[in-house]
Amino acid sequence: MADGTKDALSSNQMWGGRFASGPDAIMEEINASIGFDKKLYAQDIRGSIAHATMLAEKGIISSEDKDKIITGLNTIMSEIEQGSFQFSRKLEDIHMNIEAKLADIIGAAAGRLHTARSRNDQVALDFRLWVKEELAKTEKMLSDLIAAFLDRAEEHADTVMPGFTHLQTAQPVTFGHHCMAYVEMFGRDRARVRHAIDHLDESPIGAAALAGTPYPIDRHMTAKALGFREPTRNSIDTVSDRDFALEFLSVAAICAMHLSRLAEEIVIWSTPQFGFVRLSDAFSTGSSIMPQKKNPDAAELVRAKTGRINGSLVALLTVMKGLPLAYSKDMQEDKEQVFDAAENLELAIAAMTGMMRDMTIRTDRMRQAAGAGYSTATDLADWLVREVNLPFREAHHVTGRAVALAESKSCDLSELSLAELQEINPAITDGVFNVLSVDASVASRTSFGGTAPAEVRKQIAWWRARN
Amino acid sequence: MADGTKDALSSNQMWGGRFASGPDAIMEEINASIGFDKKLYAQDIRGSIAHATMLAEKGIISSEDKDKIITGLNTIMSEIEQGSFQFSRKLEDIHMNIEAKLADIIGAAAGRLHTARSRNDQVALDFRLWVKEELAKTEKMLSDLIAAFLDRAEEHADTVMPGFTHLQTAQPVTFGHHCMAYVEMFGRDRARVRHAIDHLDESPIGAAALAGTPYPIDRHMTAKALGFREPTRNSIDTVSDRDFALEFLSVAAICAMHLSRLAEEIVIWSTPQFGFVRLSDAFSTGSSIMPQKKNPDAAELVRAKTGRINGSLVALLTVMKGLPLAYSKDMQEDKEQVFDAAENLELAIAAMTGMMRDMTIRTDRMRQAAGAGYSTATDLADWLVREVNLPFREAHHVTGRAVALAESKSCDLSELSLAELQEINPAITDGVFNVLSVDASVASRTSFGGTAPAEVRKQIAWWRARN
Amino acid sequence: MADGTKDALSSNQMWGGRFASGPDAIMEEINASIGFDKKLYAQDIRGSIAHATMLAEKGIISSEDKDKIITGLNTIMSEIEQGSFQFSRKLEDIHMNIEAKLADIIGAAAGRLHTARSRNDQVALDFRLWVKEELAKTEKMLSDLIAAFLDRAEEHADTVMPGFTHLQTAQPVTFGHHCMAYVEMFGRDRARVRHAIDHLDESPIGAAALAGTPYPIDRHMTAKALGFREPTRNSIDTVSDRDFALEFLSVAAICAMHLSRLAEEIVIWSTPQFGFVRLSDAFSTGSSIMPQKKNPDAAELVRAKTGRINGSLVALLTVMKGLPLAYSKDMQEDKEQVFDAAENLELAIAAMTGMMRDMTIRTDRMRQAAGAGYSTATDLADWLVREVNLPFREAHHVTGRAVALAESKSCDLSELSLAELQEINPAITDGVFNVLSVDASVASRTSFGGTAPAEVRKQIAWWRARN
Amino acid sequence: MADGTKDALSSNQMWGGRFASGPDAIMEEINASIGFDKKLYAQDIRGSIAHATMLAEKGIISSEDKDKIITGLNTIMSEIEQGSFQFSRKLEDIHMNIEAKLADIIGAAAGRLHTARSRNDQVALDFRLWVKEELAKTEKMLSDLIAAFLDRAEEHADTVMPGFTHLQTAQPVTFGHHCMAYVEMFGRDRARVRHAIDHLDESPIGAAALAGTPYPIDRHMTAKALGFREPTRNSIDTVSDRDFALEFLSVAAICAMHLSRLAEEIVIWSTPQFGFVRLSDAFSTGSSIMPQKKNPDAAELVRAKTGRINGSLVALLTVMKGLPLAYSKDMQEDKEQVFDAAENLELAIAAMTGMMRDMTIRTDRMRQAAGAGYSTATDLADWLVREVNLPFREAHHVTGRAVALAESKSCDLSELSLAELQEINPAITDGVFNVLSVDASVASRTSFGGTAPAEVRKQIAWWRARN
Repeated sequence: MADGTKDALSSNQMWGGRFASGPDAIMEEINASIGFDKKLYAQDIRGSIAHATMLAEKGIISSEDKDKIITGLNTIMSEIEQGSFQFSRKLEDIHMNIEAKLADIIGAAAGRLHTARSRNDQVALDFRLWVKEELAKTEKMLSDLIAAFLDRAEEHADTVMPGFTHLQTAQPVTFGHHCMAYVEMFGRDRARVRHAIDHLDESPIGAAALAGTPYPIDRHMTAKALGFREPTRNSIDTVSDRDFALEFLSVAAICAMHLSRLAEEIVIWSTPQFGFVRLSDAFSTGSSIMPQKKNPDAAELVRAKTGRINGSLVALLTVMKGLPLAYSKDMQEDKEQVFDAAENLELAIAAMTGMMRDMTIRTDRMRQAAGAGYSTATDLADWLVREVNLPFREAHHVTGRAVALAESKSCDLSELSLAELQEINPAITDGVFNVLSVDASVASRTSFGGTAPAEVRKQIAWWRARN
Repeated sequence: MADGTKDALSSNQMWGGRFASGPDAIMEEINASIGFDKKLYAQDIRGSIAHATMLAEKGIISSEDKDKIITGLNTIMSEIEQGSFQFSRKLEDIHMNIEAKLADIIGAAAGRLHTARSRNDQVALDFRLWVKEELAKTEKMLSDLIAAFLDRAEEHADTVMPGFTHLQTAQPVTFGHHCMAYVEMFGRDRARVRHAIDHLDESPIGAAALAGTPYPIDRHMTAKALGFREPTRNSIDTVSDRDFALEFLSVAAICAMHLSRLAEEIVIWSTPQFGFVRLSDAFSTGSSIMPQKKNPDAAELVRAKTGRINGSLVALLTVMKGLPLAYSKDMQEDKEQVFDAAENLELAIAAMTGMMRDMTIRTDRMRQAAGAGYSTATDLADWLVREVNLPFREAHHVTGRAVALAESKSCDLSELSLAELQEINPAITDGVFNVLSVDASVASRTSFGGTAPAEVRKQIAWWRARN
Repeated sequence: MADGTKDALSSNQMWGGRFASGPDAIMEEINASIGFDKKLYAQDIRGSIAHATMLAEKGIISSEDKDKIITGLNTIMSEIEQGSFQFSRKLEDIHMNIEAKLADIIGAAAGRLHTARSRNDQVALDFRLWVKEELAKTEKMLSDLIAAFLDRAEEHADTVMPGFTHLQTAQPVTFGHHCMAYVEMFGRDRARVRHAIDHLDESPIGAAALAGTPYPIDRHMTAKALGFREPTRNSIDTVSDRDFALEFLSVAAICAMHLSRLAEEIVIWSTPQFGFVRLSDAFSTGSSIMPQKKNPDAAELVRAKTGRINGSLVALLTVMKGLPLAYSKDMQEDKEQVFDAAENLELAIAAMTGMMRDMTIRTDRMRQAAGAGYSTATDLADWLVREVNLPFREAHHVTGRAVALAESKSCDLSELSLAELQEINPAITDGVFNVLSVDASVASRTSFGGTAPAEVRKQIAWWRARN
Repeated sequence: MADGTKDALSSNQMWGGRFASGPDAIMEEINASIGFDKKLYAQDIRGSIAHATMLAEKGIISSEDKDKIITGLNTIMSEIEQGSFQFSRKLEDIHMNIEAKLADIIGAAAGRLHTARSRNDQVALDFRLWVKEELAKTEKMLSDLIAAFLDRAEEHADTVMPGFTHLQTAQPVTFGHHCMAYVEMFGRDRARVRHAIDHLDESPIGAAALAGTPYPIDRHMTAKALGFREPTRNSIDTVSDRDFALEFLSVAAICAMHLSRLAEEIVIWSTPQFGFVRLSDAFSTGSSIMPQKKNPDAAELVRAKTGRINGSLVALLTVMKGLPLAYSKDMQEDKEQVFDAAENLELAIAAMTGMMRDMTIRTDRMRQAAGAGYSTATDLADWLVREVNLPFREAHHVTGRAVALAESKSCDLSELSLAELQEINPAITDGVFNVLSVDASVASRTSFGGTAPAEVRKQIAWWRARN
């Protein structure tokens, strides 16, 4: 009987006696997924062990068969981890590769493992387990990244730099404050990761092909054994659903976008013109033709990853468009997109964590730039509102004229004389000169979430308590 | 002074005295957002009222000015709602249109409203409020859609139809069960919507241009007044962040994908070949050249919306890629994408709710199809496992031979004789004929989430309690 | 009879007597396209005139009816252009709006215009005509943009600036050379536009609903009248095909990407840190809160358009995925994507043409930056190869050590002493100092397509002859 | 000296003496491209041979060095093709792997190969050569696919089937005509492929890092040797340009969309409900749980590929967005997207060619369906126009009433009595019964591109002459 099973598997593939001819080379090429789904071996084996255990518990298979199955699966697990397992493309996918090997090892009992399940719920289980683990890993990596930012933020809570809008100098801020902006972003990413785990935390196994099964299985038992909150509630949906993969990809795409913004800043800040930061050698490279170059390759590659991950999201959204229920083979295209996005997101987070930790902050260049470009013009306007009681719009207009005058004289605002300022608005007093330094400007912005060092330190403490 | 303010606003735009020449026609065309951001008028006015109230409460503006401002803003709100407000493209955006009008109505006090805020936090507030309201609306519409499915599921808990995989008949299921698969999908969409609200529930106002403000504002007060959980915690991030828009678009894209699957099924089921459903006249159209046609236009249009919404998601992800902090003008491209996706998602949900409620289910055609195509072959295999104790893989092989035999005789499985079946496997008894009807098949699949009517009714009850 | 026709059209829509109930509000909302397809009125009328003329020529309708039809259509054209035409959403689309009005004006003869055609080929015709005209307009705009670059390139053929790779100073180039890089890009865009016109230059009219028609029409006659090369060759494909729209969108997406690169450069070059260019007031704006700001809004908006156009491309690719032949209503989603992309691409090209023409080039800043950052290190390496006969890799290594030494001494390469250089490699002579100036470096790169001013001027001449 | 070169390459990577520390593991992981760019080995070697030959011809390197270089490169080519070459990730990419090995084999002369070029123009060359070859392969595969359709079209020029719009029966067509619709699509794809080759047919080599080179190279010579029309005309653009990759991806995306439409039809046509075609065993698979299933897996997988290829297009468009000139490391993300799209497009075309050739056409089922659903209603309307001289709109209305009557009587149009028809319109004569058969309908549509068999055969002949 074992022979019979084995024969069916090896010569006719598992659908047995029905097809006269075998799939030809093209079909094997387009159809086989073992090239990528072998990544799911551990999940597949864990799922099978949980399933077999439940089948025995419910009297659907014998305890002896269950033991044989589990022993055989553990042997296979070892072989795969030691690299001695021979994967076969003829056997199409990870599920059949493992099942065929199990039949080799334990004979007929192997055939009982597939009782009350189908490849449809099996692949849904394996892939969902994988995505759940990947989300957990992403959560951890985001925490490490946040920690890197918190450390740099603390170190530079007082480091003045220009705050930009439109990449033009706007108002002075601190580098610590800037770092904390990324903490907010990656904090939101982490919240989304957690909710994504929450959304997918249901066990597919037991949905069978699409309709459930007449065997007296206990899906709550397998769900619990595999660490899921509960079983899924509709067997048709269970084998048709890839929301968990799409949600992973959406969350990854938004996170990659955040990373791309920081990467862009690092690229710009590393230019001789800005010179705000200096990347460590570990995260930059030279040129094959220009010996003087120190290129921010890691930052550029991180920036590029957003394209790749957006592409994966688009790919899977497109694949799923308009698929009738339940399982269609189109859905086999899900895994490579997720695997690739996961690998590249991990890499991008790791590279960014490293870059942030290693990067030299050139505080002198930042301070110098912060003071240029009339960055305290808003402070002048605010002073006019508070002290001279001008409506804000009028104060803004007056300040504009002061800036124009300073520009025409190629000097800074603080270098205009009181007489010159009074010509623009006679109510100005020399108290105004107190608000035109960058340190005064930064220290004054104490509103909740503002750039004042004391406020930034409060936010660092808030996040430390939550990271 | 009111005149001065007004003049500055109307002749030189609000950046006042600095530019020698005015923006020309191209610039006005590319730069002005009033064409679409006027949609935010109510949010803008609510935000301004909350801001003015807080400013007065904290003594930053006088109580009289606050009253004038609020009265003026309420007048403007009425004018907009009555259609008598004149929007001006010269004034660029909704914020300046309202502010300029306010100056017209109340004079100089209007200039004080902009104290301690900027267009950067103002637009972040308006748009975030809009998205939050849209998400709440989406949640409600999804509940209505779920309700439509629950009703049809209840009505058809016993209606047998073919369950498909690969669009091939797989196993019999019930139409009620199929409906419940969509309840799961839209239920997940609703969970994502709720979490998206949770993620965005922070008030941006008070972040000012990017650095916070030296005025003694109370951001918790405005947050509370506007119904937010709390204020945002980093002013740079606040004006740079469009995660809430991207998350809306991702959630919408996944939901639209679900709708597209159902739409595809409706299109296929409406063909004469399938004939499973008949759309109401309200949701179909005729042909200008072929008088006999009844086309599932609404379903096709719903299916197409997934393209449009994916496009909006890609658009905004691309726009945000690599933008340095803080605000860049690129971000002005955010609103049209979200408005368009929101409008089209609403429309698609509404059309689908209507179609589902109106659609005639042709139970005879469904039952007939359910019985064809050897749909109970799995039941035969399962019977062989349970009663003859074959390993599943062997049972599958035996069943394959039975199907091949029936095919060659152009008969159904239940029409094979016992002798013929025994020739394939001698252990088969006539008990096997009990499992080959579609009703028996469906009734037997009582596993959690399975297609048995009793099980489907339990799931309906579970969802009714949560909808 | 005219009344009958009119009545059918206005009360039951054109599919006449078959539907018991009318489409309800949702259906009208999702189904009607008049809101956007009225943009096709001129194409629709031109197509109808060509069709009617051919029908009369072939004796399918009478000459009198043809004359009435043409007169009526011309009246409608005038009304639409004067803004007095009343569009009705009940009549769904531009085709039915015009046809119903024609029936109002000329009575029964209007009913004969639809002989031997269908809305399916009619909309394919109208839209294809529109896209063809838009492509021609794009070609013209690209030529204008190229002309702007050629002018600036000529003006700045000798203006030295740093050539960047990885946004790090690499080697000196000229601004003229940099401009010519964009000429190449927009030249390729123009070549793609021309080929796109070539690919779509076939007339759809006469394909009818999908199968052709039994009337003895002459499709070559209508093709010629409408300026197409020839008629399409398969009626099923004709009404199913939207390649021309997708090709427009792909070409637009690549062009928008080019514009985004230039826009990014303008944003970076406008910073105080770079200061390479100064935008004209017409293409920049100020800040509502920071009076000193001059923001490159136009460049940022151009950069953002690439997101929008990518989104439209994705939208239509997704819509078309998996649509069975022939026409499906999903395809109605084609037009808004193309209209939006076209409008925004035009705007982006116009804005960029304006910016390029108006922009002040700060040659002093460019020259200063060109000389910094060891930009002539490659010239040193090349000198070592040529004069000292080192293999390039070794020369590169030697140069790296020279740069490291100069860095450690905070001086430029040309400021190292001969003795210092000889310590690194004893074969160096003082002839080396001749190659270390930026002007010498630039002038030396005379390879075809290189940055030497003489070579750049040759390329300018080549392009002038082709623009 | 060879040792020195080798040492520099192996221990410090090629940028030699400048970096104190080596890139760490993350950097190696994110930075190395050898994992995928080794696919370019043949192009790299061909490019180097052409470059070395030109260098010697121009006297830039000696003839002896050239000979050594070429011999060495040919040795490396053999080793790679025999699988004995050891690729090293430390050496980052294919260019450095080959160059380091060349230094091993031939010593110092290897260092001269990099004279007057850079990795920037080298990678641009290798990749462009690869894409050009891939486009040529695609062109050939499209011709084979077209040939398969032409053969089936010829075989089935008279096979009647229902023509669908909205997946509803519209008018009878022939299967040959339907096949020819795909010939048009793939013919357009092929035209786009040819123009894409035309657009990229310029040689990048000699652009060097970005600025050209002072060596007296002859770029026309290398261009000619490598089979390019001419050299590129701007060195900055040359190393910054990936239009050729994007154009390949756009063309592939449109082609994949065409394949997805056919795939969708095959999936639908393979259902028992339609039963129009039967896939060969080679292109279908069975089910692990449902022994009776014969699933159209190959068609589903082809349909899914459109998602994957759209994803690659989006990825690269996103990567290229906003990159300042010239080369940035982001561009390293170009190759995997193109390689993956190319591999999958090839596979999809091959699978479709196979499916089309093998597929059994069930002409009986097609004919039966063609006659159902009042598919000749348009013929009735056309008859009314021609014979009774009704305006088309009125004829349409009359036909609608005839269909409604037939529906209410559950009979076909041709089964209505003359009296019944005359009650709807008294002018109808019994001549009408001549136009109501599907064969008459199909034969009548002789307009250019119409479905009449004679017309379809003309189009087949036209295409045969061009394939």
